[in-house]
Amino acid sequence: MAGELDLVLERTLNAPRDLVWRAWTDPELLKQWFAPKPYLISELEMDLQPGGIFRIRMTGPDGFDTGHGNAGCVLEVIDGEKLIWTSALGPQYRPAEMGEGCESFPMTAIVTLADAPGGKTLYRAVALHKDKADRDQHEAMGFQDGWGTCAAQLEELAAGLKAEA
Amino acid sequence: MAGELDLVLERTLNAPRDLVWRAWTDPELLKQWFAPKPYLISELEMDLQPGGIFRIRMTGPDGFDTGHGNAGCVLEVIDGEKLIWTSALGPQYRPAEMGEGCESFPMTAIVTLADAPGGKTLYRAVALHKDKADRDQHEAMGFQDGWGTCAAQLEELAAGLKAEA
Repeated sequence: MAGELDLVLERTLNAPRDLVWRAWTDPELLKQWFAPKPYLISELEMDLQPGGIFRIRMTGPDGFDTGHGNAGCVLEVIDGEKLIWTSALGPQYRPAEMGEGCESFPMTAIVTLADAPGGKTLYRAVALHKDKADRDQHEAMGFQDGWGTCAAQLEELAAGLKAEA
Repeated sequence: MAGELDLVLERTLNAPRDLVWRAWTDPELLKQWFAPKPYLISELEMDLQPGGIFRIRMTGPDGFDTGHGNAGCVLEVIDGEKLIWTSALGPQYRPAEMGEGCESFPMTAIVTLADAPGGKTLYRAVALHKDKADRDQHEAMGFQDGWGTCAAQLEELAAGLKAEA
């Protein structure tokens, strides 16, 4: 489904799917891996239902700070399998104003998890854009490096979680 | 839930809720009332599930023609009660390019139906905008007149439908 307007990050993570899902959907866990270190997620709001808020604030070295951050909108949640949100809309589906940097163009993110052999997880994140210019801008901002680094952090965190009884 | 960035059309329609819903969600019926006459819906695509397409082409006197029309995205469907779609996204949630006229700004529409006394239906359509400028532009384009005329056409059509056995 990924076309020329999309960016795709795909990794096989050495952690079981339920723990990867937990690391994605527990806000306190998500904060620990969703920014490529030494950047940090300093604020996070996530309401995992259609129409719910998805907002992050990222800070980093040399005073880097995204500020309050534009609030995006959760679109679909399939437990353990899929999470979709967009920056084109805000909470309760109101069309969003664009911001700066990563928030200067609208994007929809589709994250999917699938079982892989050996108790691993096939992790896929697709970013959908409205046109080639936005896609190329997002790529030039370091989509692959950024999401790739975060995927490694996600793997490390998820692998260290204990499965629920 | 309607705030200063929204436009609201509310009418009590003299037709039962299930028939109003049918007139809204059957594409062949929707085409008959969704443009204020003498304007016409010449094309309509509607896939009533989250991520599904919502696209119309409107034509009218003096060669008026919206053209192919930007494809919007269905967000929520609660049978007989609620329909939400947006022009900020296209099918499968891809951020949408804006077009001309009514499609020059992103909008989310929330349509709700509720039972009213005497077998009537409380019909409510709310348009959400990202800022006051878009809201005012939409109002100046004739939101109230246009949606009001269409609501009357909807009422007439729904009242003439036969309830399903």
